[in-house]
Amino acid sequence: MAMTGPQASGGALQSVLDRLAREEPAALERLFRLLAIPSVSTDPAFHESCIAAAEYCAGALREIGFEARVEPTLGKPMVVGHWRAASSTEKRRHVLFYGHYDVQPPEPLEEWSAPPFDPRLVEDPRYGTVIVARGASDDKGQLMTFIEAARAWLEEHGELPVDVSVLIEGEEESGSPSLGPFLAAHGDELRADIALVCDTGQWDADTPAITAFLRGLAFSEITISGPSRDLHSGLYGGPAANPLRVLSEILAALHDEHGHVAIEGFYDDVGEPTPAQRAAWNALGFDGAGFLGGVGLSEPAGETGFSILEQLWSRPTAEINGIVGGYGGPGTKTVIPAQATAKLSFRLVPAQDPSSIIACLHRFVEDRLPADASASFAHEGGSPAVGFDTSAPEFHAAARALEAEWGKTPAIIGCGASIPIVESFRSRLGMDSLLIGFALDDDRIHSPNEKYNLRSFTKGARSWARILAALGAIDGNVGS
Amino acid sequence: MAMTGPQASGGALQSVLDRLAREEPAALERLFRLLAIPSVSTDPAFHESCIAAAEYCAGALREIGFEARVEPTLGKPMVVGHWRAASSTEKRRHVLFYGHYDVQPPEPLEEWSAPPFDPRLVEDPRYGTVIVARGASDDKGQLMTFIEAARAWLEEHGELPVDVSVLIEGEEESGSPSLGPFLAAHGDELRADIALVCDTGQWDADTPAITAFLRGLAFSEITISGPSRDLHSGLYGGPAANPLRVLSEILAALHDEHGHVAIEGFYDDVGEPTPAQRAAWNALGFDGAGFLGGVGLSEPAGETGFSILEQLWSRPTAEINGIVGGYGGPGTKTVIPAQATAKLSFRLVPAQDPSSIIACLHRFVEDRLPADASASFAHEGGSPAVGFDTSAPEFHAAARALEAEWGKTPAIIGCGASIPIVESFRSRLGMDSLLIGFALDDDRIHSPNEKYNLRSFTKGARSWARILAALGAIDGNVGS
Repeated sequence: MAMTGPQASGGALQSVLDRLAREEPAALERLFRLLAIPSVSTDPAFHESCIAAAEYCAGALREIGFEARVEPTLGKPMVVGHWRAASSTEKRRHVLFYGHYDVQPPEPLEEWSAPPFDPRLVEDPRYGTVIVARGASDDKGQLMTFIEAARAWLEEHGELPVDVSVLIEGEEESGSPSLGPFLAAHGDELRADIALVCDTGQWDADTPAITAFLRGLAFSEITISGPSRDLHSGLYGGPAANPLRVLSEILAALHDEHGHVAIEGFYDDVGEPTPAQRAAWNALGFDGAGFLGGVGLSEPAGETGFSILEQLWSRPTAEINGIVGGYGGPGTKTVIPAQATAKLSFRLVPAQDPSSIIACLHRFVEDRLPADASASFAHEGGSPAVGFDTSAPEFHAAARALEAEWGKTPAIIGCGASIPIVESFRSRLGMDSLLIGFALDDDRIHSPNEKYNLRSFTKGARSWARILAALGAIDGNVGS
Repeated sequence: MAMTGPQASGGALQSVLDRLAREEPAALERLFRLLAIPSVSTDPAFHESCIAAAEYCAGALREIGFEARVEPTLGKPMVVGHWRAASSTEKRRHVLFYGHYDVQPPEPLEEWSAPPFDPRLVEDPRYGTVIVARGASDDKGQLMTFIEAARAWLEEHGELPVDVSVLIEGEEESGSPSLGPFLAAHGDELRADIALVCDTGQWDADTPAITAFLRGLAFSEITISGPSRDLHSGLYGGPAANPLRVLSEILAALHDEHGHVAIEGFYDDVGEPTPAQRAAWNALGFDGAGFLGGVGLSEPAGETGFSILEQLWSRPTAEINGIVGGYGGPGTKTVIPAQATAKLSFRLVPAQDPSSIIACLHRFVEDRLPADASASFAHEGGSPAVGFDTSAPEFHAAARALEAEWGKTPAIIGCGASIPIVESFRSRLGMDSLLIGFALDDDRIHSPNEKYNLRSFTKGARSWARILAALGAIDGNVGS
């Protein structure tokens, strides 16, 4: 059945939603088969299972009408699929859906109430029925919400409202080493108008979210050298420069007394959140005390004058991630070490350039070196922050679709961390992403007894069905 | 032949010196037999050799008329010997000589020009004949200067100018674990009017030295705790307190911009060197540029307003000996660690109490803890500095004897490091020490091709012969 327009109408969507409701037992069975495959990407013992999970995903796509294949890499294979309207002469909107089939190791096994790859439905006092298994939320449950939505569209109407490509990787939990080379080789095949990434969470159980701000990263390792060899602190202590002291003084100077980063030039390109953003974030009713209290803290340690959400989503940081120098074994050794090293990283906001930040750091360190101390730098790199255009038509369409499903305006949120795939899509394919997911903060991803609410799975698939419809109904040029 | 007084006369001493000259080939042979025993105390493979070295020393003492025995400990045995005048009714002065028969491991063996336990005489372009072997300078050559001096006195005159006990340990190079228990058990037997310790050096090849100032030590390990677990710097960076930052700020505050220790109360009990001390040290013509240049440094990093020698001998320090926190492996990990630890040590000068300094440190750290950071302390201890009474009669007698041998006033020097045996003699036996040795800075102790100048050995034995005479000639009460 070919549709030339009415597929985006209320009636066409409603029949898709009805089908999702009828088919949910079968959809759960399909998800459970994927969850039963122990596709742990970090452990070579599970390599065959990763291939099996990739084959399963490709088969699921083929079953509903996609061209799909399992593409080898030097690591875990990629699943690539395409569905394109056959008969259309118009230029249709084209989206790339991204998810990952690999999962975190399940250890410690003894803390699971049931085997991690034996998925089951469990009654939860807070959420009702939940799906418990490794990968239930991160990311197999999430990626299947999209595939089930596409299945319902295709089975109900024989076509999708937009052209859809799919990329499902198997190394997200192990640093995605194959992704860069793969995008370099297959970028033209994967490039679309926008990417749909389903690996994030909601604001809360009742409030959907679109993640629109991701901080970037710059990192460096500083080594301060002083004496030509380790010295005895009795025979040299006093006159001899101690690199650990020099390093401590430099690191202590990184922040001023208000928590601002004191590196000259660090804030040159940093914009403040708009009043509208601030108002929207304040309206979210964020539980700052709960956020900090959950990790044993009570007071925000970041820049004064900014709320916790502003500190996380809109402000850059300088963090010391490690220091190594001198004697680290048990007891005492009165050494003045020849060298001391610190690993630093900086979270960046849009318009900050990682290489400029690293250059500012170099000047900052070199300006503070006393006599007889030198500095060297290693292991440097980074990626810029990402801020999506929240006025883009796809963004509006997705937001309206989420609101229709959940009865609440989606929260437009940030994430303090980078999501490397999003930066790769932007830098390598010139493509923005819509980050929409249905996970909750208490899904215990990466921990024992990982769960995904059945409601997240049900309403996640319904949300994607609506988003596909809404994307298909956007007027205007595409593929520009 | 009993002497009732004239043994201290010039004639009696001269015949001892003459005998030392005649007997030097035999003395060297005796030293070489001791050097040939690989008495490495840190390596269990050489345990039997340590026992053999102890037996050799005890035998050497018995051969010249001492009562001597090898006393077992839980580690390496102690050599204890006594010579007391048989017939005297007067209360004679009594000294305890200390040395050690154990040596450092000889590795790396390939850097020795000859096997380390095959002692030999080598012609040196700067010093003439030198004795090359592990332990030649530290401490077998030095301790044999004393035994040879005693031998010459006993063989020439049948008695020593003072009563002499001897303690030769075998764990000096491995931290002297048995020394404390041994002094507790045998202190009464070993207590004397003063200890003679021959394990230090001269000022230079032509200038003898008495080491009269030894810095003390206090040490502590500080752990700063923040979040209840390691955090992801993307998801928490900004609002979350970072213990590495807190630690860096505390460590950076340890010193002010003039290099003074900024811990409140740290200098409360510190005296300045007297003008006479300063003048004497300045007159030594210390080569500060050479001292620093030898370890790749060019400018004194200690307190401004004090010379390098003053910084080393008369000023306390605060040193960071190690920092451990966060990620220390290769590459980058964007972690905010739950804890960070620094090992600190303080060199102390006389009148500073180690436990008071540690208490000051605790207050200093606790006063600087921001919200959500706590501090704990571990591995604490220390020992006070030692400053000898340079007006004591034994000190004057030894100084005059050294001047007679070397033709130069001995340098009264300090040592920036502790010498634990000296502190143990003082705290456990209530006994001061005279630290007199004939090693040179370039003797390569602890390194390949360790040497002891033949002149150091010859004139060292002659010096002890003179010092024994001078100590015996002191008027006044002894054993008070």
